[in-house]
Amino acid sequence: MTTNYKIIVQYDGTEYCGWQYQKPEYKTIQAELCRVLRIIGKNRVVVTGSSRTDAGVHSKGLVANFHLSVAIEPESLNKALNALLPKDIRVMECKIAEKSFNARFGAKSKTYQYRIYTGQIQSPFDQRYVWHIPYPLDLKAMRRSLKYFLGERDFTSFTSGETERKKIREISMFKMRVKNEEIVFTVQGRSFLRYMVRNIIGTMVDIGRNKINPREIPAIFAAEDRRKAGQTAPAKGLTLLKVEY
Amino acid sequence: MTTNYKIIVQYDGTEYCGWQYQKPEYKTIQAELCRVLRIIGKNRVVVTGSSRTDAGVHSKGLVANFHLSVAIEPESLNKALNALLPKDIRVMECKIAEKSFNARFGAKSKTYQYRIYTGQIQSPFDQRYVWHIPYPLDLKAMRRSLKYFLGERDFTSFTSGETERKKIREISMFKMRVKNEEIVFTVQGRSFLRYMVRNIIGTMVDIGRNKINPREIPAIFAAEDRRKAGQTAPAKGLTLLKVEY
Repeated sequence: MTTNYKIIVQYDGTEYCGWQYQKPEYKTIQAELCRVLRIIGKNRVVVTGSSRTDAGVHSKGLVANFHLSVAIEPESLNKALNALLPKDIRVMECKIAEKSFNARFGAKSKTYQYRIYTGQIQSPFDQRYVWHIPYPLDLKAMRRSLKYFLGERDFTSFTSGETERKKIREISMFKMRVKNEEIVFTVQGRSFLRYMVRNIIGTMVDIGRNKINPREIPAIFAAEDRRKAGQTAPAKGLTLLKVEY
Repeated sequence: MTTNYKIIVQYDGTEYCGWQYQKPEYKTIQAELCRVLRIIGKNRVVVTGSSRTDAGVHSKGLVANFHLSVAIEPESLNKALNALLPKDIRVMECKIAEKSFNARFGAKSKTYQYRIYTGQIQSPFDQRYVWHIPYPLDLKAMRRSLKYFLGERDFTSFTSGETERKKIREISMFKMRVKNEEIVFTVQGRSFLRYMVRNIIGTMVDIGRNKINPREIPAIFAAEDRRKAGQTAPAKGLTLLKVEY
């Protein structure tokens, strides 16, 4: 008999090589959680995450689950986890989930945020979380481009991953909010390919630089060729906001 | 002939041993500025700061000045400084000042902010900037205490410094703002003694914990004894907001 726990994890990804366990010498979020749960659960524990965020990407809402053979009251488990985890990783919520709950395969929608600052000098308090582009971008062209990414499409041109077979994904929401010199993108979909959000944002910035015309976007999709789309936006501007089931 | 430059410096103090130069092996803000100005100015440059912030304290508005024997256009100098400084230190503004301007002795008022979070779990994005006290505080008692710190007083009980002779200082503004589980203090005065703001905030928290009664504050002042006041609040919650001349 095991208990299935569902947790919401926030982290500042700056110091980590991403979510997924790699090698013992690489600091990852999953490895930190496994290390801590091994202490609490007395055995090796498998932690499943909703998303494999890249090195430097942040989270305000990643969901994970794991089974423990010892039954611990969720609130006590939450406290124990935070007492043992480094301060840049926090378990914000801990609940008992249904036996069948799987954080990875059950996710219905994921919401990411990407922040850009276009002022000349970036605040030192933003440098870990915001991409700094020190000149104005063509916001009109960027706004005109949003609609091309919506709906079900083949995102081959926007992924750098080699392993996935199906490159069809659906973006259900793609918004751009401008406040003073900050641009904040919000993008929502059921699932994303590797680097997909960062490649879309990088392409948006190339549109904002008038390097790519919004009307070229359909041809970029049609090419199914990563080299046709824009640059990859840096990891630090990206935050996983929310995962829904 | 030299030119006197006035700069506004923001920094995330987490990785620094404070403003003031100490030993070559200690990372300080002043040492970083001196290092960079020596490259730009070709000679050793003395940098004077408005405030000697402690290790871990942040700045959104520290003012500094320095004289250069080479005349550089302020905007170019600003860019050169930021190009050479680490990203957690930024020169936000650079201007030519009057010959006589001295960032340290000319300051008429300094404004500090102190942030506290009283929720159970602190966001990893706040851990570098906010003191975490994971239980509610007696906000009424704290509000009743604010007035005791205002005006001209002998702050001997609230300083840990040994070198200063005169311990009389004047606080012209001391405010407390509560939003959800965050408490933000703003304190303004012409100048402050070493650890003075942090000792006042630590005392406020001890009042919020009902360890000290607001009515005891006049006696704490009168004792002129550091041991009578409360704890020293951690550096990370403190930010120098603004310096006026």
